[in-house]
Amino acid sequence: MSGTPAVAAVDWGTTRLRAWLLDHAGEPLGERRGDDGLITAREKGFADVLERHLAALGAPSTLPVVICGMAGSRQGWVEASYVDTPAPITAILKGAVRVAGPSRDIRIVPGLAQRTAALPDVMRGEETQLAGAGLPAAGKHLVCMPGTHSKWVEVEDGAVAGFGTWPTGELYSVLASHSILRHSLGENPVPVAADSQFFRDWCVSALNEGGDVTSKLFAIRAAGLLHDLQQGDAAACLSGLLIGGEIASARRRYRHANAPVVLIASGSLGRLYAAAFGLAGIPVNEVDADRAVRSGLLEAARQNQMIVAEGKAS
Amino acid sequence: MSGTPAVAAVDWGTTRLRAWLLDHAGEPLGERRGDDGLITAREKGFADVLERHLAALGAPSTLPVVICGMAGSRQGWVEASYVDTPAPITAILKGAVRVAGPSRDIRIVPGLAQRTAALPDVMRGEETQLAGAGLPAAGKHLVCMPGTHSKWVEVEDGAVAGFGTWPTGELYSVLASHSILRHSLGENPVPVAADSQFFRDWCVSALNEGGDVTSKLFAIRAAGLLHDLQQGDAAACLSGLLIGGEIASARRRYRHANAPVVLIASGSLGRLYAAAFGLAGIPVNEVDADRAVRSGLLEAARQNQMIVAEGKAS
Repeated sequence: MSGTPAVAAVDWGTTRLRAWLLDHAGEPLGERRGDDGLITAREKGFADVLERHLAALGAPSTLPVVICGMAGSRQGWVEASYVDTPAPITAILKGAVRVAGPSRDIRIVPGLAQRTAALPDVMRGEETQLAGAGLPAAGKHLVCMPGTHSKWVEVEDGAVAGFGTWPTGELYSVLASHSILRHSLGENPVPVAADSQFFRDWCVSALNEGGDVTSKLFAIRAAGLLHDLQQGDAAACLSGLLIGGEIASARRRYRHANAPVVLIASGSLGRLYAAAFGLAGIPVNEVDADRAVRSGLLEAARQNQMIVAEGKAS
Repeated sequence: MSGTPAVAAVDWGTTRLRAWLLDHAGEPLGERRGDDGLITAREKGFADVLERHLAALGAPSTLPVVICGMAGSRQGWVEASYVDTPAPITAILKGAVRVAGPSRDIRIVPGLAQRTAALPDVMRGEETQLAGAGLPAAGKHLVCMPGTHSKWVEVEDGAVAGFGTWPTGELYSVLASHSILRHSLGENPVPVAADSQFFRDWCVSALNEGGDVTSKLFAIRAAGLLHDLQQGDAAACLSGLLIGGEIASARRRYRHANAPVVLIASGSLGRLYAAAFGLAGIPVNEVDADRAVRSGLLEAARQNQMIVAEGKAS
């Protein structure tokens, strides 16, 4: 490992944890990925799980740690109460809550709550990705962060005006594992490729239906029975249907025409969404999700004066 | 048991079986309900399962048996190949396939297939309900048969012009059991009442969204976290959202304005759908689903000359 770490940054979700040592420029000096998310850490103890990862990374015992995600939920380590929308992104970061007890400085970034009666919503973790996405300080931006629970955020002049959740990833896995579509997709659905013609056709079809996906789910099963649709292609149909449906629905809610959307994603999921936005005729500015969360965590550490100026570290 | 049975009628689905002895007017002389549907019967043997129920009903050994449902699928007892749309309803019934082997006359009504490239679909069992719903021989009728896989059928002058499937019941149970909403609804969700204000509010909201339900699923979870939504009310929200979404989607597909819809349903599910149609401003002609399937099975027996004229039975 080269360079001096300025802070340890942790994205601590429900089922997994990612931890990095970051230098003063936010470059990762080391990375750990584990499946000891909230659920596991509640049993093993959050402090023990964290220190084990920090030790593996060779983190000094005085290195501060900044955390985002479900570790700050009521069922987490220390509750970092939601900040309410509308909220300046820097105000969210500044609300990081200190974990009492450990000698090192450990803080957890709060989540965000939208307390409207018609569309209540919450996020934890994505606010930090958003903070690190490098959005221009001024102007309106629509941001899409795909995942188990995809988040769409309206940002105005550096503040979150509102947001919504589409549980696209969860729908995919629940339908693939527990609905009649498990017969269509098979036991271990193959990863879907963004250039699959089935993905593209079903995505285009869904984009034309304004977010209605339930009317076409059973057609995947029927296409297997009547048209001999193969398992891998059925997975592509379901993925295209759900992702196309999400974009159509969000476009409708946010009255979004063809201005660019900021897509914060990575890997194969990012490629699927990029393809779907292309099919929708919506240009995207792509931001790597891993880089964004690291930048957001570094910024949170800075906003909370957790980082010792370079050269002064012991 | 009074009266002479003309036929035994069986609705044999994937997970359950219902059998009746019917007199010449279609009135039930006895009824059996069992959980030995297709899945169980594949293990135990279809003939054995059937004869056990017939014996319990006191059916004569020469009594003919007419069956609809998944027993006629490729994984069933004897495959009764799909009839393709568009199809006169009587032609579907006439296609009943005889089970070879047993001495008594046993026939299975075929299912219906819609082999269009864009919207392939299949049904097995609902075609028989439809045949027994007492639809006028002439005119156009839109029929809704709610359930695990709700079917909507366009009937024109006694023929099925086309149909669609909304897996509303399956979505409800899969989301309630396997998605993050299981935390919102609790272990054993209470039955939803049609006069629940939560059911009604979420149904109205969904009716205004053209079939988009995925954008509001997570709001049920968030309403629990932010607004203290209770488990029973969360179940009502999910039910209202999905049923309202189904009606909105089907109304859009079939360009249906405010003409009456034929609603073939029974029990609490029928009450929820009747309430939802009321909220949509769509009048319904309600037909009891149990009565409809019995009438359809009796008609299938007649169309296939399975019934000995009254008074000639041994």
